[in-house]
Amino acid sequence: MGSRSDWPTMQHATEALDALGVAYDARVISAHRTPDRMVDFARTAKGRGVKIIIAGAGGAAHLPGMVASLTELPVLGVPVKSKALKGLDSLLSIVQMPGGVPVGTLAIGEAGAKNAGLLAASIMALSDEALAGRLAAYRASQSDSVPDTVED
Amino acid sequence: MGSRSDWPTMQHATEALDALGVAYDARVISAHRTPDRMVDFARTAKGRGVKIIIAGAGGAAHLPGMVASLTELPVLGVPVKSKALKGLDSLLSIVQMPGGVPVGTLAIGEAGAKNAGLLAASIMALSDEALAGRLAAYRASQSDSVPDTVED
Amino acid sequence: MGSRSDWPTMQHATEALDALGVAYDARVISAHRTPDRMVDFARTAKGRGVKIIIAGAGGAAHLPGMVASLTELPVLGVPVKSKALKGLDSLLSIVQMPGGVPVGTLAIGEAGAKNAGLLAASIMALSDEALAGRLAAYRASQSDSVPDTVED
Amino acid sequence: MGSRSDWPTMQHATEALDALGVAYDARVISAHRTPDRMVDFARTAKGRGVKIIIAGAGGAAHLPGMVASLTELPVLGVPVKSKALKGLDSLLSIVQMPGGVPVGTLAIGEAGAKNAGLLAASIMALSDEALAGRLAAYRASQSDSVPDTVED
Amino acid sequence: MGSRSDWPTMQHATEALDALGVAYDARVISAHRTPDRMVDFARTAKGRGVKIIIAGAGGAAHLPGMVASLTELPVLGVPVKSKALKGLDSLLSIVQMPGGVPVGTLAIGEAGAKNAGLLAASIMALSDEALAGRLAAYRASQSDSVPDTVED
Amino acid sequence: MGSRSDWPTMQHATEALDALGVAYDARVISAHRTPDRMVDFARTAKGRGVKIIIAGAGGAAHLPGMVASLTELPVLGVPVKSKALKGLDSLLSIVQMPGGVPVGTLAIGEAGAKNAGLLAASIMALSDEALAGRLAAYRASQSDSVPDTVED
Amino acid sequence: MGSRSDWPTMQHATEALDALGVAYDARVISAHRTPDRMVDFARTAKGRGVKIIIAGAGGAAHLPGMVASLTELPVLGVPVKSKALKGLDSLLSIVQMPGGVPVGTLAIGEAGAKNAGLLAASIMALSDEALAGRLAAYRASQSDSVPDTVED
Amino acid sequence: MGSRSDWPTMQHATEALDALGVAYDARVISAHRTPDRMVDFARTAKGRGVKIIIAGAGGAAHLPGMVASLTELPVLGVPVKSKALKGLDSLLSIVQMPGGVPVGTLAIGEAGAKNAGLLAASIMALSDEALAGRLAAYRASQSDSVPDTVED
Repeated sequence: MGSRSDWPTMQHATEALDALGVAYDARVISAHRTPDRMVDFARTAKGRGVKIIIAGAGGAAHLPGMVASLTELPVLGVPVKSKALKGLDSLLSIVQMPGGVPVGTLAIGEAGAKNAGLLAASIMALSDEALAGRLAAYRASQSDSVPDTVED
Repeated sequence: MGSRSDWPTMQHATEALDALGVAYDARVISAHRTPDRMVDFARTAKGRGVKIIIAGAGGAAHLPGMVASLTELPVLGVPVKSKALKGLDSLLSIVQMPGGVPVGTLAIGEAGAKNAGLLAASIMALSDEALAGRLAAYRASQSDSVPDTVED
Repeated sequence: MGSRSDWPTMQHATEALDALGVAYDARVISAHRTPDRMVDFARTAKGRGVKIIIAGAGGAAHLPGMVASLTELPVLGVPVKSKALKGLDSLLSIVQMPGGVPVGTLAIGEAGAKNAGLLAASIMALSDEALAGRLAAYRASQSDSVPDTVED
Repeated sequence: MGSRSDWPTMQHATEALDALGVAYDARVISAHRTPDRMVDFARTAKGRGVKIIIAGAGGAAHLPGMVASLTELPVLGVPVKSKALKGLDSLLSIVQMPGGVPVGTLAIGEAGAKNAGLLAASIMALSDEALAGRLAAYRASQSDSVPDTVED
Repeated sequence: MGSRSDWPTMQHATEALDALGVAYDARVISAHRTPDRMVDFARTAKGRGVKIIIAGAGGAAHLPGMVASLTELPVLGVPVKSKALKGLDSLLSIVQMPGGVPVGTLAIGEAGAKNAGLLAASIMALSDEALAGRLAAYRASQSDSVPDTVED
Repeated sequence: MGSRSDWPTMQHATEALDALGVAYDARVISAHRTPDRMVDFARTAKGRGVKIIIAGAGGAAHLPGMVASLTELPVLGVPVKSKALKGLDSLLSIVQMPGGVPVGTLAIGEAGAKNAGLLAASIMALSDEALAGRLAAYRASQSDSVPDTVED
Repeated sequence: MGSRSDWPTMQHATEALDALGVAYDARVISAHRTPDRMVDFARTAKGRGVKIIIAGAGGAAHLPGMVASLTELPVLGVPVKSKALKGLDSLLSIVQMPGGVPVGTLAIGEAGAKNAGLLAASIMALSDEALAGRLAAYRASQSDSVPDTVED
Repeated sequence: MGSRSDWPTMQHATEALDALGVAYDARVISAHRTPDRMVDFARTAKGRGVKIIIAGAGGAAHLPGMVASLTELPVLGVPVKSKALKGLDSLLSIVQMPGGVPVGTLAIGEAGAKNAGLLAASIMALSDEALAGRLAAYRASQSDSVPDTVED
C-alpha cells in the first residue's frame, strides 16, 4: 500500500487471505515518496517467489500501475477512498491503464480490498487443489450466511 | 461478451492471447437476454477445464459480476464503451462489486480488452514457464517499440 | 433486496404498500452471494402469483436487472446509496439496461424506495378499483399536507 | 414526448408496443412550452381510458415528473440524450423524484425508449392473458436471437 | 420553495432581501405534490403585482422551470443540496432548460439562495434609484468587510 | 463574450433580443487576455446606460463572475460548450459563485444563450409595457408552434 | 487566498515554505468581493519583487486565473474543497484555463496547498543553491519517513 | 510525453517555447512501457542541466507524477484528452498528487500544452531578463489580438 493511512482499508485484503490460508507480506511502499523502494520491490518480486501483487493507493494512485510496469506478475489494484473525490480519482488513476500494462482493479475501499484478497486466492487456487477446496467452502459459507428475511 | 456488438472491442483480448499462444474460446452470452446460457456456462466452466473467464459488457454491465457469482474461477471484466455515458456506466457496473465476489476490472474499451488478455496470460504464466518466457519477451519487445523521439 | 443492510432504505417501500393496503413479501436475495436463490425466486415468481417485483441494491447493483432477465413480470429498481459514490454507481448499474430487458428505476435511496411502493400500487390499481380509490385519497392527502407558509 | 426532435428516440417505444399489439397514442407535449396542454392531457388521461403514460424528454426534463404529479396512473420516463451532457442531465431530472410522486425511469436514449414500451406491455399483461403470451414469446425469441459465437 | 425542508437554505434569500429593503412573500409550493397550487400561483403572479419569482428546489427540481413555463416574469432558480448527489441533480434539473423558457440559476445551496436575493434586488434596482443606492452601499460594505490578512 | 469563437453560441442571445426589439451591444472581451478592457467595460457600464450584461464563456469561464464583481447591474451567464468536458467546466465556473456576487446562469450552449436573451427581455419588460406585450406574444406563439403529433 | 475561510487549507502552503526557509506574504484577496484589491495586487506584484503567486479559492474559483491574467509571474492555483461539490467545481474553475494564461494547478485541499508551497520552492531553487540543498534534504527526509511495514 | 500519439497535443507546448526562444528537448518516455527510461531520464535531468520538465500523458496518466517523484526540479503536467472519458481521467491522475510531490497541472488538451510552455517560460524568466521582456511582449500582443467586435 502507498501509505500507512491505507491500512484500515487494505487489511481487509489480508483478512481474506488469512481466512483462506494464503501467505502474504504486507508492506508500505509509496510510488511518489519512495520510488526507489518501489522499483526495487517490483523488479525483484518474481525472483523472490512472489506470485501476485495487490497494490492499494488513493488520489492520483500510481502505485498499482507503476508496479505493473515493473513486473510481469499479475497486479491487482485497490482504489482507496480519497478525501475530496471519494475515490473516483483513485479508481480512474488505477483502472484506466493503457494497453500493454494491465492492472486488475477492484471496487473503491474496503470491499475492493477484501475482493483483491479473494481474487488473489482464486488465482493461486488454479494450481493448488487444497486452496481451491477452501475457497469453494468459503464461497458456499458466504451464500449460506445471507439471511432470507429481514426479521431476526 | 454480452453482445456481438462488443466484438470489435473484445477481439483485442483474443489478439493478445493469440500473440502469447494462450488457448481460448470466444462466446456471446448475454446476462440479460440469455440468463440460462450464462448460468450454465459459468457453473460448468471449471469442470470443463476453463481457468480464467474474461467478460466484457457495456451499459448496466452485469455479465462479469454475475459470472463471478456463479464460479470460483478468476473473472476479469472489460467495460465496453457505451453510447451515452462513454463507458462510465459500464465501468461502475463492473468494478463496484460488493465484498465477497471479485471481478478484476480493466480499462474502458480496447485497451482494457487487450489488457484482460495480458492479465489472463500473466496468471496462466504463474504455472507455465514457457508462457512466462513468451510474456517476458512480449513485454520487452513492447518497451523497445516505444520511440525515443517524436521525429521519424 | 440484495442485503439486509438495504432494509433501512427498502422498508420505505413496504411502508408505502402498507399505507395503501397492498400485500407483499419482503426477502433478502443477493444476486452475487446467492445467485441460485435469485434464479429460483425470479423464475417461479409468476407461477406463485407475484405481480410486481421491487428490487433494491447498491454499488454494482445487478439484482434488479438480473431479476428482470429471469421473469416477464414488471420489475422496479431502487438504487441504494453506496458508501463511496453515494449511489451514482447503484443508479447507473440499474437504469442503464440494454434494450429488451426493462427495469423501471426510481430515485436513489429512501425516496426511491417509497416511490417504488407507490408505483407498484398504481400498477395494481389499474385492475383494482378499491385500491385506485385508496391511492387517489393518498395522493390528495399528500397534497393537503404541504404547508402554504414557512411559519408554524 | 416533449419535442418532435425526441421522436427518433421515442419511436423505439412505439415499435415495441406495435410488436406486442398494444394500442397507444403518440403526442408531442412540452412541459415548458405548452404547460396547459400538459396539465389538460395528464388530468384527463385516466378518464379517457389511458392506462400508462410514457414520457420522454431531454435536458432539464420535467415532462415525466410533472405528468406524474398530475395523475395517479403509472408514468414511465425516458431520458433523451442531450447535446452537451449526453443525457446525464435528462436522467437525473427524471429519476431523482421526491418521495410521493414516482416515475419509473428507463435508460438514456433508444434502449430506454424500447424498454419503456416493453415495461408498459408487461404491466398491461398483468390483466391480459393474450398479451402475456405474446410477451413471453417475444422474450423467448429475443433469447434465441443471441448468437453463440462471434463468427457468422 | 418546493418543501419546508428547503427553508434553511432559502431563508438566505429572504435575509438578503430584508437587508436591502425589498418586499417579498415566502411560500411553500411543491411542483410535484401541489401542482394545482403551482399553476395557480404562477399564472396569477403578474396580475398580483409580483415582479420576480425566486424558486428553490432539490433533486429532480422542477419547480423553477415549471413556474417559468407559466409566467413571463423573470424566474430565478436555487438548486437545494440533495442527500445523495449533493445538489448536482438539483443544479442540472434547474439550469439545463430548453431554449424558450429561461431560469436564471444560482449556485447550489445557501450561497445561491443569498445570491438569488441579491440578483432580484439588482433587477428591481434598475427602476428604483433608492434601492440602487442601498445595493451599492451593500456591495461596498461587503468589499470593506474582507480582511486583508489572516491574522486577527 | 470571452472569445470570437463563442459567437456561434452567443448570437442566439442577440437573435432573441432582435426578435423582441431590445437594443444591445455585442462585444468580445476576454477576462484572461484583456482584463483591463473587462474592468473598464464593467466599471463604466452603468454610467453608459447599460441595464443588463449577458456574459458567455467556456472552460474556466471567469468572465461572467468577474463582470458581476465589478458592477451592481444584473449579470446573466452563458456556459459555452467546451472541447473536453462539454461545458460542465464552463457551467460550474459560472454558476458556483460565492454568496455576495450573483450571476444568473443559463443552460450550456445555444439554448442557454437564447434564454439569456429572453430573460434579459423579461427583466426589461418589468418597466416597459410595450416590450411586455411583445414578450407575451412571443411566448404565446412559441406555445402554438409546438405540434401536437409526430406526423406532418 | 480568496477568503479567510480558506486559511485552514492554505496554511499548509505556508508551512511548507516555512520548512524550506522561503519568505512569503499571506493575504486575503477576493476576486469577487475585492476586485480592485486583486487588480492592484497582481499588477504591482512584479514591481514589488514578488517572484511567484500562490492563489487558493473554492467554488467558482476565479482568483488564480484572474491573477494570472494580470501578471506575467508564475501563478500556482489551489482548489479549496467546496461544500456541495467537494472541490470538483474549484478544480475545474482553476485548471481549465484557456491557452495563453497558465495556472499551474495542484490537488484539491490541504495536499494541494502543501504542494503549492513545495512547487514554489522548487522554482525558487532553480536560482538558489542553498534552497536547492534544503529542498533535496526535505525530499530525502520525506522518503525516509515512510515506514516499511504496517506494524509499529 | 508518454506516447507518440500525444504529440499533436504536446507540440503546442513546444510552439509556445519556440515563440519565446526557450530551448527544450522533446522526448517520448512511457511511464508504463519504458519505466527504466523514465527513471533514468528523471534521475539524471538535474545533472544534465534541465531546469523544468513538462510531462503530458492520457488515461491513467502516471508520467508527470512519477517524474516528479524522481526529481526535485519543477514538473508541469498536461492531461491529454482520452478516448472514453475525454481527459477527466487524465486530469485527476495528474492533479490529485499526495502532499509532498507536486505537479503543476494545466488544462486538458492543446490549451494545457500551450500553457505548460508559457508557464515554463515564466519560470525561466524569473532569472532571465531578456526572456521576461519577450514574455511581456508576447502577452501584450496576445491582448491586442483579441478583437473588440464580432464583425470582421
